[in-house]
Amino acid sequence: MASMATYFVKTPSPSPSFPKTFNTHFSPALRLSIPLSSKPRTRRRLRISNALIEPDGGKLVELFVKESKKGEKKREAASLPRVKLSRIDLQWVHVISEGWSSPLRGFMRESEFLQTLHFNSLRLEDGSVVNMSVPIVLAIDDAQKRLIGESTRVALVDSDNNLIAILKDIEIYKHHKEERIARTWGTTAPGLPYVDQAITNAGNWLIGGDLEVIEPIKYHDGLDRFRLSPAELREEFTRRNADAVFAFQLRNPVHNGHALLMTDTRRRLLEMGYKNPILLLHPLGGYTKADDVPLSWRMKQHEKVLEDGVLDPETTVVSIFPSPMHYAGPTEVQWHAKARINAGANFYIVGRDPAGMGHPIENRDLYDADHGKKVLSMAPGLERLNILPFKVYILFGCDAIHGFSLISSFIINLFPCRLLHMINLKVKWHFLIPQGNRTSSSYRAPRYAFF
Amino acid sequence: MASMATYFVKTPSPSPSFPKTFNTHFSPALRLSIPLSSKPRTRRRLRISNALIEPDGGKLVELFVKESKKGEKKREAASLPRVKLSRIDLQWVHVISEGWSSPLRGFMRESEFLQTLHFNSLRLEDGSVVNMSVPIVLAIDDAQKRLIGESTRVALVDSDNNLIAILKDIEIYKHHKEERIARTWGTTAPGLPYVDQAITNAGNWLIGGDLEVIEPIKYHDGLDRFRLSPAELREEFTRRNADAVFAFQLRNPVHNGHALLMTDTRRRLLEMGYKNPILLLHPLGGYTKADDVPLSWRMKQHEKVLEDGVLDPETTVVSIFPSPMHYAGPTEVQWHAKARINAGANFYIVGRDPAGMGHPIENRDLYDADHGKKVLSMAPGLERLNILPFKVYILFGCDAIHGFSLISSFIINLFPCRLLHMINLKVKWHFLIPQGNRTSSSYRAPRYAFF
Repeated sequence: MASMATYFVKTPSPSPSFPKTFNTHFSPALRLSIPLSSKPRTRRRLRISNALIEPDGGKLVELFVKESKKGEKKREAASLPRVKLSRIDLQWVHVISEGWSSPLRGFMRESEFLQTLHFNSLRLEDGSVVNMSVPIVLAIDDAQKRLIGESTRVALVDSDNNLIAILKDIEIYKHHKEERIARTWGTTAPGLPYVDQAITNAGNWLIGGDLEVIEPIKYHDGLDRFRLSPAELREEFTRRNADAVFAFQLRNPVHNGHALLMTDTRRRLLEMGYKNPILLLHPLGGYTKADDVPLSWRMKQHEKVLEDGVLDPETTVVSIFPSPMHYAGPTEVQWHAKARINAGANFYIVGRDPAGMGHPIENRDLYDADHGKKVLSMAPGLERLNILPFKVYILFGCDAIHGFSLISSFIINLFPCRLLHMINLKVKWHFLIPQGNRTSSSYRAPRYAFF
Repeated sequence: MASMATYFVKTPSPSPSFPKTFNTHFSPALRLSIPLSSKPRTRRRLRISNALIEPDGGKLVELFVKESKKGEKKREAASLPRVKLSRIDLQWVHVISEGWSSPLRGFMRESEFLQTLHFNSLRLEDGSVVNMSVPIVLAIDDAQKRLIGESTRVALVDSDNNLIAILKDIEIYKHHKEERIARTWGTTAPGLPYVDQAITNAGNWLIGGDLEVIEPIKYHDGLDRFRLSPAELREEFTRRNADAVFAFQLRNPVHNGHALLMTDTRRRLLEMGYKNPILLLHPLGGYTKADDVPLSWRMKQHEKVLEDGVLDPETTVVSIFPSPMHYAGPTEVQWHAKARINAGANFYIVGRDPAGMGHPIENRDLYDADHGKKVLSMAPGLERLNILPFKVYILFGCDAIHGFSLISSFIINLFPCRLLHMINLKVKWHFLIPQGNRTSSSYRAPRYAFF
């Protein structure tokens, strides 16, 4: 793993020359590289400018208590009603406190919750709109609500009763679970992983408020050094003299097909006139469902692929995105993209059925495979982000060399069409990765292979 | 009924002096009249200007074929594949063709459908945003899809095969019913009236495109003269020299409590400096569930209340809103408000649980009673509309005079607190209106009484 850690520390710190906000959704220049698409989807042109994209709301939120105030805050917390955080709650505290969800300053109050459910966006005081598609909320039960009584703040503690944060100016409102689930996932079918894990048995109330976090969240799993905050990532991109940052979200092993995609994206950004596009290779590190590949395995696998030298350490930052996974398809992919704006990315790569999964009780995908990138391209508050969709090709043929006569017969991908054959050869090994209880039907395999 | 008809024809045609778009959601001046609310919800101030509020998209859409082109269009339609419209489809053709859903020019294509489901709004070419919260779509089945084949246009016909319209530049895409239902209603519970009526058995494809309507839709039920289009309403408001238009949507009998609310609203608008605020009393005339009071009864009942002279014919326009009813609460109330912008209204009155109903399988309301007005006040594309919420008061007491010892014991309402006693007396007769199979529990009665 040491070799990966160096990817974000071993670059020089040259003179600043950085990118800026753009007005396109689908990048026009990159769009031209997508076969079968001849009609421009936007008339706006990219401009290359000299600053990283602004965080949502104009300022990156960080919610840590200053060192000089910690004693005072700890004493204050000792007298407050306590709310115990689950593992997923703690991950959300992590997410909010580092500013991935800027301009959110804490768990959502009702107005933010409703705007998220109905509009996938929040309107700010100045009338501007930022994207916000998944509810970031904290549930409490009747007993906890009674305990809180008239208090305007509570102490948040972990499972060992360690103080994590204070939540202040609180607002308690009803947790309409069915409606939350229906509007977030577009289904209420039993068996949605996040719902089973974090909603079904959660309390009937939600508590919103502003966070004051005592210590940054750490997991002590040997991977904390990969968990760079948005501020740290921005610092790193600046230090590397990035003039474009393109983010690649994944929650599965990276394979050479991915790597070629990323390499080719950089090449195309260079062709567009950027001098130093930097890749943010950003595996998701929060809650994932039981049959997903665990984070530690994935990080090892990333290392293996990266060791092949297909990705250039000088232009790649590997880091862990601390968010839990909703598996909410077109709704969630907006969150994945929005969080990366806050980390400084102005290009976002999106493939087939992002954040999707099989329907929990029907024999089909839960989401239309194309809805993710379509919704992303139209989402309010993401206008500044350049969306880089890539295509999946299904080739009919037969290749028994690897023993995948069906699976490898419809390989795949990517928008640089001329790389197809190379990818066709390289991508197959990916199917050796354990796939849990997923079926290996000819339809599902390539989807799984790519996101 | 004749007396009602005069409400929109017997006024003089004075010199124009009309209102305009505003920036508030909750009207600040009217807000002050809501008891228990001391904190201003917006800092913006109303301005009184001299034009009716602009339709969404800047221009009112009307989609009727010119008289001179009808012959040609009918001949063209004869050679096109046919799609048969249900009663509700026909109501939507009515809605779209008259511009209630401006700037929509036909049944939604997929990009509009997705934006509606995810964002409750549409982004226009110029980057501006209009509200659009309920999908206005046309379903076809596999056989119809095959029949359409490669045709780029279809003829829409009614149940008697009469030509209604041509749908051109069509796009056919999948009808993801479960997702549509979940995202529109916030539940997928069986028994949602509109779902049972118009979605469950509908085809698995949606067909979008631009409408060319041969003849305006008529129902020949004796009520067509009350079905004024947005253009006709705008003309009427202009003729009446309106400088503010406040709309009141209802799908239940109007009672004197409503009437007092409307009268008081006008008084307050006058206090704010408007010279001639006009009330648009606007019962919904499209599909309603079986246990709602039928439109013809409601119109008769409106007449009876209006004959009492509580509402002034000079300042009231009674008309029928042709939309079908979704019973989709906070999602649908946005549609009700948005459509009235297109008809020229710049104030919209909203009460408890608008467009709500009981949960189809649980013993509770489907929506939080306050979510409707909260969502409305934050909805993208409705910033120009002044929302006038009114409060429901629950008084504990007992009054056996009318034999409603429980029902009448917690009367009710409205934001003009000083009218409370009068309403308390007058409102009770409303409970004599047949209520179908609704329960008369002490909780449900006042909700039903008011919207």
